[in-house]
Amino acid sequence: MHFLDRITSPADLKKLNYPELEQLAEEIRLEIINVVSANGGHLAPNLGVVELTLALHKVFDCPKDKIVWDVGHQTYVHKLLTNRREQFSTLRKYNGLAGFPKREESIYDCFDTGHSSTSISAALGFAKARDICQEDYHVVAVIGDGAMSGGMAYEALNHAGNCDSDLIVVLNDNEMFISPHVGAMSQYLNKIRTAPMYDKKKKDVERFLKNIPKIGTTVAKAAGKAKDGIKYFLVPGMLFEELGFTYLGPINGHDIPALETVFKQAKQKKGPVLVHVITCKGKGYEPARKNPDIFHGVGPFIKETGELIKKEDPPTYTQVFGKTICELAARDESIVAVTAAMGSGTGLNGFGKEFPERFFDVGIAEQHALTFAAALALAGLKPVVSMYSTFYQRAYDQVLHDICLQNAKVVLAIDRAGVVGEDGPTHHGIFDISFFRAIPNLTLMAPKDENELKHMIYSAFTYNNPVAVRYPRSNGLGVKIKEEFELIPQGKAELLQEGDDLTLIGFGPVVYLCLDAAKELQHRGIKANVINLRFINPLDKTLIIKQAKKTGKIITIEDHVLSGGMGSAILELLQQEGLNNLAVERIGYNNYIEHGPISILHQVHGITSTNIVKVAEKLCGVK
Amino acid sequence: MHFLDRITSPADLKKLNYPELEQLAEEIRLEIINVVSANGGHLAPNLGVVELTLALHKVFDCPKDKIVWDVGHQTYVHKLLTNRREQFSTLRKYNGLAGFPKREESIYDCFDTGHSSTSISAALGFAKARDICQEDYHVVAVIGDGAMSGGMAYEALNHAGNCDSDLIVVLNDNEMFISPHVGAMSQYLNKIRTAPMYDKKKKDVERFLKNIPKIGTTVAKAAGKAKDGIKYFLVPGMLFEELGFTYLGPINGHDIPALETVFKQAKQKKGPVLVHVITCKGKGYEPARKNPDIFHGVGPFIKETGELIKKEDPPTYTQVFGKTICELAARDESIVAVTAAMGSGTGLNGFGKEFPERFFDVGIAEQHALTFAAALALAGLKPVVSMYSTFYQRAYDQVLHDICLQNAKVVLAIDRAGVVGEDGPTHHGIFDISFFRAIPNLTLMAPKDENELKHMIYSAFTYNNPVAVRYPRSNGLGVKIKEEFELIPQGKAELLQEGDDLTLIGFGPVVYLCLDAAKELQHRGIKANVINLRFINPLDKTLIIKQAKKTGKIITIEDHVLSGGMGSAILELLQQEGLNNLAVERIGYNNYIEHGPISILHQVHGITSTNIVKVAEKLCGVK
Repeated sequence: MHFLDRITSPADLKKLNYPELEQLAEEIRLEIINVVSANGGHLAPNLGVVELTLALHKVFDCPKDKIVWDVGHQTYVHKLLTNRREQFSTLRKYNGLAGFPKREESIYDCFDTGHSSTSISAALGFAKARDICQEDYHVVAVIGDGAMSGGMAYEALNHAGNCDSDLIVVLNDNEMFISPHVGAMSQYLNKIRTAPMYDKKKKDVERFLKNIPKIGTTVAKAAGKAKDGIKYFLVPGMLFEELGFTYLGPINGHDIPALETVFKQAKQKKGPVLVHVITCKGKGYEPARKNPDIFHGVGPFIKETGELIKKEDPPTYTQVFGKTICELAARDESIVAVTAAMGSGTGLNGFGKEFPERFFDVGIAEQHALTFAAALALAGLKPVVSMYSTFYQRAYDQVLHDICLQNAKVVLAIDRAGVVGEDGPTHHGIFDISFFRAIPNLTLMAPKDENELKHMIYSAFTYNNPVAVRYPRSNGLGVKIKEEFELIPQGKAELLQEGDDLTLIGFGPVVYLCLDAAKELQHRGIKANVINLRFINPLDKTLIIKQAKKTGKIITIEDHVLSGGMGSAILELLQQEGLNNLAVERIGYNNYIEHGPISILHQVHGITSTNIVKVAEKLCGVK
Repeated sequence: MHFLDRITSPADLKKLNYPELEQLAEEIRLEIINVVSANGGHLAPNLGVVELTLALHKVFDCPKDKIVWDVGHQTYVHKLLTNRREQFSTLRKYNGLAGFPKREESIYDCFDTGHSSTSISAALGFAKARDICQEDYHVVAVIGDGAMSGGMAYEALNHAGNCDSDLIVVLNDNEMFISPHVGAMSQYLNKIRTAPMYDKKKKDVERFLKNIPKIGTTVAKAAGKAKDGIKYFLVPGMLFEELGFTYLGPINGHDIPALETVFKQAKQKKGPVLVHVITCKGKGYEPARKNPDIFHGVGPFIKETGELIKKEDPPTYTQVFGKTICELAARDESIVAVTAAMGSGTGLNGFGKEFPERFFDVGIAEQHALTFAAALALAGLKPVVSMYSTFYQRAYDQVLHDICLQNAKVVLAIDRAGVVGEDGPTHHGIFDISFFRAIPNLTLMAPKDENELKHMIYSAFTYNNPVAVRYPRSNGLGVKIKEEFELIPQGKAELLQEGDDLTLIGFGPVVYLCLDAAKELQHRGIKANVINLRFINPLDKTLIIKQAKKTGKIITIEDHVLSGGMGSAILELLQQEGLNNLAVERIGYNNYIEHGPISILHQVHGITSTNIVKVAEKLCGVK
């Protein structure tokens, strides 16, 4: 790595000539493929932005200038150029480099991202602060075309376009975001890319405008007066110009000199500028280029072939959900499915293939997805929406105000509930119980294993209110999945094991940790009840109260924060029922959780049977 | 009311000729002014849509056809036309007609709204359900230009524009929404309105296009080939056309025949259609037309003069907040303020006038507002965002992911916390404790009165983390507001009264109910502690534990749902501290709350000192 080895800060980059930069780009790609094939990560997006990142750091002066990376999963190149080469092999590992920008990791990371469509808002914040403080630096937001489907990006464009603050938005148009593009904006960008004017310069347009003859009609007069209209067609990107931006592009995002030129131009312009850059996701690595969807975020793979390293594991919860929903949809044609650009991640792609007319990928637009689903339900269909727990945070009001207040019977699949591993704090799904359980009308449940997930999804469609089902990002436990659908009575918990000394309550697959702990405790002379809670809203009062009274001691465990979580719901129930003099311990998280393998995170934060045993012994007064 | 008296359903409307419709419009305006001047309500928006609503119900067949009203505060005319004339005088009263659409109120209300920018999503849901079920009806969304600044509206446009489903979006452009317009979209609409082509028909454009001479340059060839570009200027609304919509308009929204014609056209078109209608807010009532901001949502007024009926009440919490923030900003130039189209409602308009450079109204764009504020903070400023509790629901992730995960020191003013009265369930702020208290790093506080609010806002800027301060929609208690700012130590509660029998804990102005109850209880021989909690996150462990141990009995009271609320936080603390054998009762809400005066809602749902006394006596075993 001749050149990469010499880069310790972006300043080193500025000394290289174009052939050297191209060589550097190649080395960066190699390094990224090496590390991601071993550690997993977001491969295709990073391979797509190598030249773009080089050109940005060549033209702008970070950390004085601020670059805000939308979503942030495309910052590997940026990390390699900003003094993190040495730690790069620790990418996404426990205590290693994060897969996203992190202010605490580097002064070159000015804003932490993780979720989509936030970068223009953040960049505008920096720009306004700069103006108020009378400082002098450039602010750049780098945002993908996918993120542009998120309403928040539009809110920020709308604000920025009406300000005179200098701000550069780089639209990284890779012609396909996480899933193939959807939506009218995507169509519009496609039109720009394929327009005959692709390479024309604005001055040609100006010359043409001067040559337009005066026609003696009012219409022509109007046209002659303002040239904007004709520019609409001749200059691409007028939609952005209408929103107040100066549009530059489209530019080939793998041509460093061209990028350098356009960024220099952008620096000169006053007010908001949008630079439209066309990149190719997965560029330079054939398997990723061919399958950018698979190589968007990927586990370890064999770098020579691009073959994914798969173990013969039980199906994931996501897969079981996907299969179940197809089975149900085959029997009931009123079932429809909605995803927000996560067809693959949420296991709904199969549904999309099998039932294209009943499948809606609305783009990265969680808010719209849920209100859209509310109306589908009120119109008599049976919609299921699948989304990651962390992304429901972006559409909380739509669940509370549009679905539950109207009691619209939507089934909400909460995928990636609990810690999700290497993607870290921005992606862990550890708040959903707290924010969902306060919502009236909403039934909230969690299966103990993949078999129960199947029957819960089936059952959810039979209840008379909106239902949310939370399940983790992981393989199932390998239990047998019962063919025939079984109805789980709404609000019924399951007593898996009886004991007189102590009650263990789990919500989700942590129930198996309770079973393991109970076994261990039995060896130590403590007989524990184990309750598979299954439901919060409604709680199974009868069962919980009976067992609580019997044992006098309760331990709750959840893959979730303690504040407002499942254990908190149990405390509320006990208080409501006037049960005093019970000893309760709750196991769960107390803070944002760092990144790392799920197993390590569980270990470190006490989501283990060992910890349950420890807490139980303390509670029972055993030394 | 010659004509209005005869309307029991939209069918009756269809029999009237234009002069009769105009007479009806006048009667409707009179009726609305009569009722709103007595009951309060959204006057200006309804006066603006009289003809629009008449034309919609003339052309479309409800309830078969579906009309989704964005926000829904403009549905008074619709209610008068759909068999709710008799109850109309009960508008917004307890047990009376709601101020927003309500499915349970009428079959003519197909989707409940209240929050902005949801209508296109809902309408598209109906349209897709219709197509899947092979039914045959029209779906119309009516959305204001203000609501168009919400990202969710764009998400839905983006989805709808790329579908072939028939869908009509009526853009009700009243040239000024709740506050004067902000944002690039608003500028764009203004450009359309003032364009010379206002009245031109498309056929004129077509004729012009045919007459364009062929110029021998490549540019001109390109122009000649595709006429779209020139249409851009000549036909307004091409921005919407680029997003896949057929644009019709702009149309004078007070011209019933013109509206009828355009709606009939829209019915004929295939795919998504946007009808741009220009209306005048407050039309037909001079005081409202002149001050649409004041008469947007208004309390009772003298209808002859438009004079607001004001009592000599203490300042509202909102006013105290607004005044405080101005005082602080005068002393500290790094303080900046952000609002999402609620400068007036949140008391920030004064700040905007005094410090225009440091004031940002970003439009109805809560998500953007908060992430924008996060960056302002990281760049060294001290931003305060003021928003209604119910609207924080729309930007939950931005608080969790963009502000608190980065520990960006933003002060969040949560206005309208607790029940808000006549606006009802969509606007009550009774979930914020539940969804905010689970967020790490976020300090959550509530003042017992307007004086404490002042000092809390001051103190919030001195803490080293993001802070949220919740306060209700109401007048203060008339306490003396201390001139000098006082620092409230972070996490310190206040013991207002000491007693040995019982501890009463209040959060917010309900603390005074606790004091009243304590007085009454003393007469009955029960001596109560009263704690002004002030802080959730961090809780004042020392004080609470000490008093809990001393009295053994606790009652919590909050203007909030119980699930996950303040009382729940107290239960968690007691559990963490291993305090068994305490008797706790919690007072708060268990469900969505209906509309009506705050005082009645508090009465009905037990947020009263009488109820505290009752619960206390039961807890203390007094009959």
